[in-house]
Amino acid sequence: MMSFNNQFQNGIVILGAGNVATHLSIALKKAGLEIKCVYSKTIDAAKKLALKVDSHYTNKIEQIPVEADLYIIAVKDEVIEVVIKHLKLKYGVVVHTAGSISIDVFKEKFENYGVFYPLQTFSKDRETDFSVVPICIEANRKKLEDILLELGKRLSNNVRIVDSNKRKKLHLAAVFACNFANHMYSIATEILKDTDLSFDFLKPLIDETAQKAIDSDPGLAQTGPAVRNDQNVIKEHLRMLKDNPEFEKIYSFVSDSIYKLNKKKN
Amino acid sequence: MMSFNNQFQNGIVILGAGNVATHLSIALKKAGLEIKCVYSKTIDAAKKLALKVDSHYTNKIEQIPVEADLYIIAVKDEVIEVVIKHLKLKYGVVVHTAGSISIDVFKEKFENYGVFYPLQTFSKDRETDFSVVPICIEANRKKLEDILLELGKRLSNNVRIVDSNKRKKLHLAAVFACNFANHMYSIATEILKDTDLSFDFLKPLIDETAQKAIDSDPGLAQTGPAVRNDQNVIKEHLRMLKDNPEFEKIYSFVSDSIYKLNKKKN
Repeated sequence: MMSFNNQFQNGIVILGAGNVATHLSIALKKAGLEIKCVYSKTIDAAKKLALKVDSHYTNKIEQIPVEADLYIIAVKDEVIEVVIKHLKLKYGVVVHTAGSISIDVFKEKFENYGVFYPLQTFSKDRETDFSVVPICIEANRKKLEDILLELGKRLSNNVRIVDSNKRKKLHLAAVFACNFANHMYSIATEILKDTDLSFDFLKPLIDETAQKAIDSDPGLAQTGPAVRNDQNVIKEHLRMLKDNPEFEKIYSFVSDSIYKLNKKKN
Repeated sequence: MMSFNNQFQNGIVILGAGNVATHLSIALKKAGLEIKCVYSKTIDAAKKLALKVDSHYTNKIEQIPVEADLYIIAVKDEVIEVVIKHLKLKYGVVVHTAGSISIDVFKEKFENYGVFYPLQTFSKDRETDFSVVPICIEANRKKLEDILLELGKRLSNNVRIVDSNKRKKLHLAAVFACNFANHMYSIATEILKDTDLSFDFLKPLIDETAQKAIDSDPGLAQTGPAVRNDQNVIKEHLRMLKDNPEFEKIYSFVSDSIYKLNKKKN
């Protein structure tokens, strides 16, 4: 127990080759850590990431080296359990990077385990400044928690202990703040499609809206027809959306919710 | 007709003292234009803005000077018609700043009129860099359109002609990209309220989500459980929201919409 090298000198194995796996591996490599092997069931994806971080690669889980110090599972949530089932290791630490999966997913099988959840949206072909990415750490032992905290601090200035329950809430909040906010931008682009107005026109607005929320409280920063309960504008907008019942429903529910939340606050 | 001074040397009257009126007045003043009078039905609001832009002020619409070159109506949408009804002027140009109101609102009463719509979210106590704010211009005469374009260019590098129909669509798109995106941030803060996790934790994510949309296409940049159709996570999130049927509904509709829009695109 706890016999792995706490500087991870026997290397790190990355399981997964998607956005999180890619950006995290690159950040670890930049921080001077060795990526020993990249595993992905898609050999091309494994190879592509392995080339970036100067590592071996495989698409066979039984070929993963068993003597690494750290195994980072950064696959899709729904395959984490399958990967855990087939992963063999001698003494290393195993962590996953998922917002919504409990640390308990490891407890039947491993001795030293934890969670290393970077709270950011990662995209292929877009660089990530890992130093500002909040990293949420959890571990099954206090000493391991400290070791993962130290590792986190080598990548980011924003590392803290967050237990599985809180992490789940954080992930849910992040779905709203990131995926759902982004979908509002997407709907805006759809609305502009049948005009000659480009989405570029909205960019200063998107930027300012985000900066305003970052500088203050988004609940207090709200503007627009819904918070003013300007029914003339709201009705006209709903009329304009009548050919798209999906956007119409979203408009209606979100407007109601803005008005109610604002009333509760004031 | 067209007898006003096209450099607006006889000054500008601002009707309204809210966020748009305030930021626009300050930008005009900075650009070297004279604000002659600020009107607001709330005398304190009129006075407060007048002090900022070195102007007279009144809360009586009949006391507004009749010989100014430009009258900018920046009141709430629902009172624009009332203000128009009572406004008297000799030869000036009158414009409004509303996204959703047609230019035709002026046609019964005035000879020279238009729209001067700054597409941005303005807040009290927050400075605005007007140079990046898109300004949408419309006018009832070509020559006046040119004059308003010139005026816009004194404030911003991003000025263009947008007719009432397109402006309405732009405003609807802006409601999604700004007010609704901001509400997604607000819901995120509400979700974190019963934890000790502060909203600060989400700020790098909000910033990156906005920058990603600005740098590429938000439809292609989507991440998260909805676009992956990860039903395990989605069901768990809906369960977590069951005490707040409003947020639950928004989660469900927006997730569906993300999945459908993505399928349509790919």
